[in-house]
Amino acid sequence: MEQAPRCAFVIYGMTGDLSARKLMPALYEQHLKKTLNPESVIVGYARSDMSSEALRGKMKDALKEYVDDFDEKVWDELAPRISYIDATAYDSVKDHKKLKKHLESLDQENRVFYTATPPASYEGIVQALADSGLNTSDGFVRLVIEKPFGNDLESAKALNDHVLKYFEEDQIYRIDHYLAKETAQNLSALRFANTIFEPIWSNRYIDHVQVTMMEPIGVEGRGSFYEAAGVIRDVFQNHLLQLLALVAMEPPARWDARSVRDEKVKVFNAMACLEPKDAVMGQYTNNGNMAAYRNEDGVDPESNQATYAAVELHVHNWRWEGVPFYVRSGKRLESKASEIVLHFKKPPHIPFQLESPLRSDRLVLRLVPDEGISLRFNAKEPGGQTFGLERVGMKFFYDKEFNRPNPDAYETLLLDAMTGDPTLFMRADEVEAQWRVVQPLLEYWDSGTRKPAFYKAGSSGPEEANLLLASNGYIWHAPDNGK
Amino acid sequence: MEQAPRCAFVIYGMTGDLSARKLMPALYEQHLKKTLNPESVIVGYARSDMSSEALRGKMKDALKEYVDDFDEKVWDELAPRISYIDATAYDSVKDHKKLKKHLESLDQENRVFYTATPPASYEGIVQALADSGLNTSDGFVRLVIEKPFGNDLESAKALNDHVLKYFEEDQIYRIDHYLAKETAQNLSALRFANTIFEPIWSNRYIDHVQVTMMEPIGVEGRGSFYEAAGVIRDVFQNHLLQLLALVAMEPPARWDARSVRDEKVKVFNAMACLEPKDAVMGQYTNNGNMAAYRNEDGVDPESNQATYAAVELHVHNWRWEGVPFYVRSGKRLESKASEIVLHFKKPPHIPFQLESPLRSDRLVLRLVPDEGISLRFNAKEPGGQTFGLERVGMKFFYDKEFNRPNPDAYETLLLDAMTGDPTLFMRADEVEAQWRVVQPLLEYWDSGTRKPAFYKAGSSGPEEANLLLASNGYIWHAPDNGK
Repeated sequence: MEQAPRCAFVIYGMTGDLSARKLMPALYEQHLKKTLNPESVIVGYARSDMSSEALRGKMKDALKEYVDDFDEKVWDELAPRISYIDATAYDSVKDHKKLKKHLESLDQENRVFYTATPPASYEGIVQALADSGLNTSDGFVRLVIEKPFGNDLESAKALNDHVLKYFEEDQIYRIDHYLAKETAQNLSALRFANTIFEPIWSNRYIDHVQVTMMEPIGVEGRGSFYEAAGVIRDVFQNHLLQLLALVAMEPPARWDARSVRDEKVKVFNAMACLEPKDAVMGQYTNNGNMAAYRNEDGVDPESNQATYAAVELHVHNWRWEGVPFYVRSGKRLESKASEIVLHFKKPPHIPFQLESPLRSDRLVLRLVPDEGISLRFNAKEPGGQTFGLERVGMKFFYDKEFNRPNPDAYETLLLDAMTGDPTLFMRADEVEAQWRVVQPLLEYWDSGTRKPAFYKAGSSGPEEANLLLASNGYIWHAPDNGK
Repeated sequence: MEQAPRCAFVIYGMTGDLSARKLMPALYEQHLKKTLNPESVIVGYARSDMSSEALRGKMKDALKEYVDDFDEKVWDELAPRISYIDATAYDSVKDHKKLKKHLESLDQENRVFYTATPPASYEGIVQALADSGLNTSDGFVRLVIEKPFGNDLESAKALNDHVLKYFEEDQIYRIDHYLAKETAQNLSALRFANTIFEPIWSNRYIDHVQVTMMEPIGVEGRGSFYEAAGVIRDVFQNHLLQLLALVAMEPPARWDARSVRDEKVKVFNAMACLEPKDAVMGQYTNNGNMAAYRNEDGVDPESNQATYAAVELHVHNWRWEGVPFYVRSGKRLESKASEIVLHFKKPPHIPFQLESPLRSDRLVLRLVPDEGISLRFNAKEPGGQTFGLERVGMKFFYDKEFNRPNPDAYETLLLDAMTGDPTLFMRADEVEAQWRVVQPLLEYWDSGTRKPAFYKAGSSGPEEANLLLASNGYIWHAPDNGK
């Protein structure tokens, strides 16, 4: 593995949750694998009144909790390279000048700034970086912006406009960590490094596509965030549309940031915008010891916010015309599962006399649990004078095939930001195109007329979501339990 | 499972090896599964001087040896239905008249005659059946002819002419038990009951096809048979060409005897005949305690007979033009394996920057060992900044998926003969077409100019077989070890 260039990695909100759970563990792993340059430094910028020493103590505690096989000796190598800027505000120019001096004193001209802070702070951080002259340097300057990028089409455009005033597009790394998951990337390997899948990857052979992302947990203390966001902003506009783009995109000429993102943007631009009629929105009610959404902390007891959505999307282009994409996601569902299922058409003609209807082929790309791929197809039942068929499965599991674990998405993304590869980050036009797709549905939902379909916590979602498919003669694929 | 109609099942050569190892166990299994009609009877016809009682004792011993979990009670039900005609010769009209009376006394008008005898006896049996009036009946009359059917194109034609003088084609069941193997049949299910395979099943996506049938055993006491036959007659003209036909045939309109055999004959008729230049013929030499072919019992110490062949075949039609079919088989090879491997072309374009050459996709249809299917394709290696690929496998195993064992091919074939389904048997024009394909190679080999390439017993065959592929840039697929 290549080693990233020497740089200062500046984390805004380093004392927060994302930093503890994802960013520090990713940097620790990079250090272990020596992909982190041994002369790189990590600089925290936050509003907690603490010393660098205290921050290091906090980070050590975090690593002990979130890293497997924490090694004190490894930590002792990394710890001295962590320092802290105790700031009064994220947008303080004064504190940014302090940061600038600090980076100069560390002799670090290459700089990556990472906004692990609430979205409301992004604009101020960018402004302060510009006002303190930190948006330029003799080395490289990169800005990594956490999700969500904007709250709707208009705010996303405004944020893009603002950031692009002070940074070039190729300096901006907009995060959607779903893109960096190995299975998401493997979807592209599957399609574009093999001969056998791409010929059947179109409306000629695919009947419809289902994407499911289920979580058993509720809003988990993020009630007030969720009240403002809802399920469409939380996972549809970003993760799910990105997964869809990987399924639907044309083969790019090269696997580089420009070619890949061009192809994804083409998919979003070919998508019909989501109208209220295309969606079933749901909200979970209580069940046993699982509280209803309306009873969660920070949630309006009469809230109509959606914690579940099932939508029908269409990509109007040569490859996909006529193939519905059904996408569903929600909180407090029966299991944890993320998967993409291609449902193939039935064969044009069956020569065999069958006693039961033929089941059609499916390709299941499973992200969670047990990352892998299953192919469901028909095989002959052993024996019998008539030709009996049964749908069987061929399976591939990542962890069985490769004896090293998949890196966490954040490890990949942080390394890409340091090495300067924005392929797995979202471009300005891409993030806007994604907002455009969900905008009509969001507007309707943000208005007062909305009313969710209720579903019991721990269930498979509202009955209306089944009807959405049933009206076309389909049923949801029961999430693959992997092994 | 359907029950076969009531009939008399007459076995010529019932005291022989095939009967003991395959036919009786098949009938015993049918009885267990109740597919054998409870009023059907089994009549032996052979030249061994013994009583019906003695034959039953011999059959009981055979079942004890060749059937798993032999059950005395089951045997006691079946045994009284077995009787014996002690004949002077296979072609004795007198003995056939005795047989006729016996069948009449058993009140069995439906009759299946099975030639489990040396091929030289087939013509005489047919003549005696005709001369004694056993080729007609108030019920059905069917004739099952064991392989080999003829010794070359001319003799096969002569045998067909003779048999067709006294029987209609739809009464004649020419055995190739390879066709009744579940994996061979499943190849058709795979192709014609699924949407995903057929679109890539052509010269557009397939680069070449390899068929391997390896045996670790030598000629095992069949030396004198093998001296006359050689590997081409033993397995190429029949089993291997049949497997190829299943791979290469067009989708039949219906899965019935006529449609399926029409399509197979079309494949044989589209095949270029095998010329000496298309083949590498080999013969095993001694290795450790494994004797050389020339030292086997019944073999000429200066024999040049081939115990191994690797050939390149071409099917000149719209689907297969330009796709070589490499087929190899031999005795005394390193392992027991039968498999068909489709080697796909490389993708037309790879967007990824790869550090090592891309390996192409393969579909492995494994008959022996561990019947199943494997798909080899490229997946992304976990981690890494560059896009690393590794070829991985998705696997399907029959025995894991179905909790009942595959029936033996003979069980299937005997049942088909009794129910009257000749789909898995060879038609007159089919067997002649198969002989036509191998005829030029056979003629050359039967002449004195032949000289085999020698290979060590227990090896993977002669080096010349590797060169046959290497000249086109290919290598033989190392037989899949299944699990």
